[in-house]
Amino acid sequence: MSKTYRVAILGATGAVGTEFLELLASRQFPLADLKLLASPRSAGRTIQFAGENLPVEAVSEEAFNNVDIVLASAGASTSRVWADKAVASGAVVIDNSSAFRMEPTVPLVVPEVNPEAAFTHKGIIANPNCTTILMAVAVWPLHQVEPVQRLVAATYQSASGAGARAMEEMKEQAQAILQGEQAKTEIFPYPLAFNLFPHNSKLNELGYCEEEMKMVNETRKIFAEPQMRITATCVRVPVLRAHSEAINLEFGRPFSVEKAREIISQSPGVQLVEDWQANYFPMPMEASGKDDVLVGRIRQDISNPNGLELWLSGDQIRKGAALNAVQIAELLVKENLPAAPELAVSGKK
Amino acid sequence: MSKTYRVAILGATGAVGTEFLELLASRQFPLADLKLLASPRSAGRTIQFAGENLPVEAVSEEAFNNVDIVLASAGASTSRVWADKAVASGAVVIDNSSAFRMEPTVPLVVPEVNPEAAFTHKGIIANPNCTTILMAVAVWPLHQVEPVQRLVAATYQSASGAGARAMEEMKEQAQAILQGEQAKTEIFPYPLAFNLFPHNSKLNELGYCEEEMKMVNETRKIFAEPQMRITATCVRVPVLRAHSEAINLEFGRPFSVEKAREIISQSPGVQLVEDWQANYFPMPMEASGKDDVLVGRIRQDISNPNGLELWLSGDQIRKGAALNAVQIAELLVKENLPAAPELAVSGKK
Repeated sequence: MSKTYRVAILGATGAVGTEFLELLASRQFPLADLKLLASPRSAGRTIQFAGENLPVEAVSEEAFNNVDIVLASAGASTSRVWADKAVASGAVVIDNSSAFRMEPTVPLVVPEVNPEAAFTHKGIIANPNCTTILMAVAVWPLHQVEPVQRLVAATYQSASGAGARAMEEMKEQAQAILQGEQAKTEIFPYPLAFNLFPHNSKLNELGYCEEEMKMVNETRKIFAEPQMRITATCVRVPVLRAHSEAINLEFGRPFSVEKAREIISQSPGVQLVEDWQANYFPMPMEASGKDDVLVGRIRQDISNPNGLELWLSGDQIRKGAALNAVQIAELLVKENLPAAPELAVSGKK
Repeated sequence: MSKTYRVAILGATGAVGTEFLELLASRQFPLADLKLLASPRSAGRTIQFAGENLPVEAVSEEAFNNVDIVLASAGASTSRVWADKAVASGAVVIDNSSAFRMEPTVPLVVPEVNPEAAFTHKGIIANPNCTTILMAVAVWPLHQVEPVQRLVAATYQSASGAGARAMEEMKEQAQAILQGEQAKTEIFPYPLAFNLFPHNSKLNELGYCEEEMKMVNETRKIFAEPQMRITATCVRVPVLRAHSEAINLEFGRPFSVEKAREIISQSPGVQLVEDWQANYFPMPMEASGKDDVLVGRIRQDISNPNGLELWLSGDQIRKGAALNAVQIAELLVKENLPAAPELAVSGKK
């Protein structure tokens, strides 16, 4: 029980990396050692952790020596370069990028939904897309009671989804527009402040963007429902760091609103936020910095006797990324894993 | 053909009133006289129109004497007080408020959808809800070809929906937040800048807000489809003046994306905005100030072989309010109506 772990954060200087540090400290993760890795550009900086100034090291093959767990959030291309090397060094990689999520041998885990999948890993465990995680924790407990037949989602995604620099860009744009100046764009293709646009990830031949296909494919994998009918419209909105989603659920038979509320109020990772008198429901402003996904406005769909409408806001950096990854690490640690490197790599529990 | 009309604007100093003035001038509405009416609070001000300073008069029973057409946008309670009086004075009232929209004897008109309904009026013609108008012009041409069986909408509504003062409040909030200060709320129940929240209109017993029920009930009335299955989630977002909507349509059989694009590109009141290579689709920033509703991202719904997804942005003050009302007035004028007051009141063409 007193076992401690040597952890490395890959992408330590990014928005999610910063949150990893905060969570490891606040959740008292059993650390033996903490290594901060980033691109050579960021190497040499120091970051405060638990009263100590830790150096940021450039990522290298040797950097993964004597590391048990890697929390990676440095983008898909970086993960593709380094994850296998870290695994070869004996570490378990919990990867926040999209690089390995859909690989059949890589488990894709939301601890409230499919914790058991974490233990099937072969060295890499994938952390799902942020929008998908937020939806999964809210929909899963309902799906357990009555399988979802079809899901129609529309998202309201914050600037943080594009990283820390994107958040700054959006604030700079807002300042410029308020001063009557032109908004400059660098990260985003169009001004986001006082504007919004369909998610600017790559479009497939059907016109769905990558973000939407992540919601479709990753939810199917996490739920182990490969045929689940899901459609989504993903939209970036001028909000700083929490995503919101309007979700229309169709079941095989009526699902009472009262039952849905009771289920949400008793499920892990979600918090029922509804004051119908005050017209008070989940808002990104209030979801920011919270662990739980705020769920509310659960309504009987008046267009479909078997339908429910629900609304959620969740911290995209926290539960949508860093917290979910740390929770996956905690799942392993609870079982005294990773054990010896050989075992971790072979995926045996 | 050279007939001219005596027009009064009720609510001349509001956001929609200002737009009425701009539209009457730019569309060269055949004016014989223009009277600006507002609450006693605003009376005494002057507003420039076509190079002249027109006085704003306090609304009164006498103010409607010698007026042919009243363009009213002063809120439902004001319309309830004055509309009948204006009609009794011989005017036709085109009312932008929700006061009379669902009254069976009052036509609810979107000129691109049901122009013929305008001629059935008994003195009052209702201008629909803004979100509803934008959706109606986009969905109607598709519905004509293949009836919509079910519609699921999620909206992204700008501050202008709550009036000119609300737009200012949102800008003030943004400035405060950028300076690290607390955002103040007066018009809105919660800060809107860098935040969003479910539409704050009154909730019914099923949890649908008034805005959502307007989308349901008004669309049914405009389309003359009293049973049409519609559900909506209305959300206020920190955008200044154009609304956006994600609309999922279900038909009785497959509707090809190519056909839908062709129909939208040839229909009045809408403009197809799609550049799939550049990931460029309708945005509120670009819809602002435009007459047409921008429609794009038309996709085959991958969760439903009979489904289409579409996305739109439209100027909430322009087509969503003032322009639609002026277009209704133009419908009448084209038929040399209103004729003698007796005829206008009795509704005979």
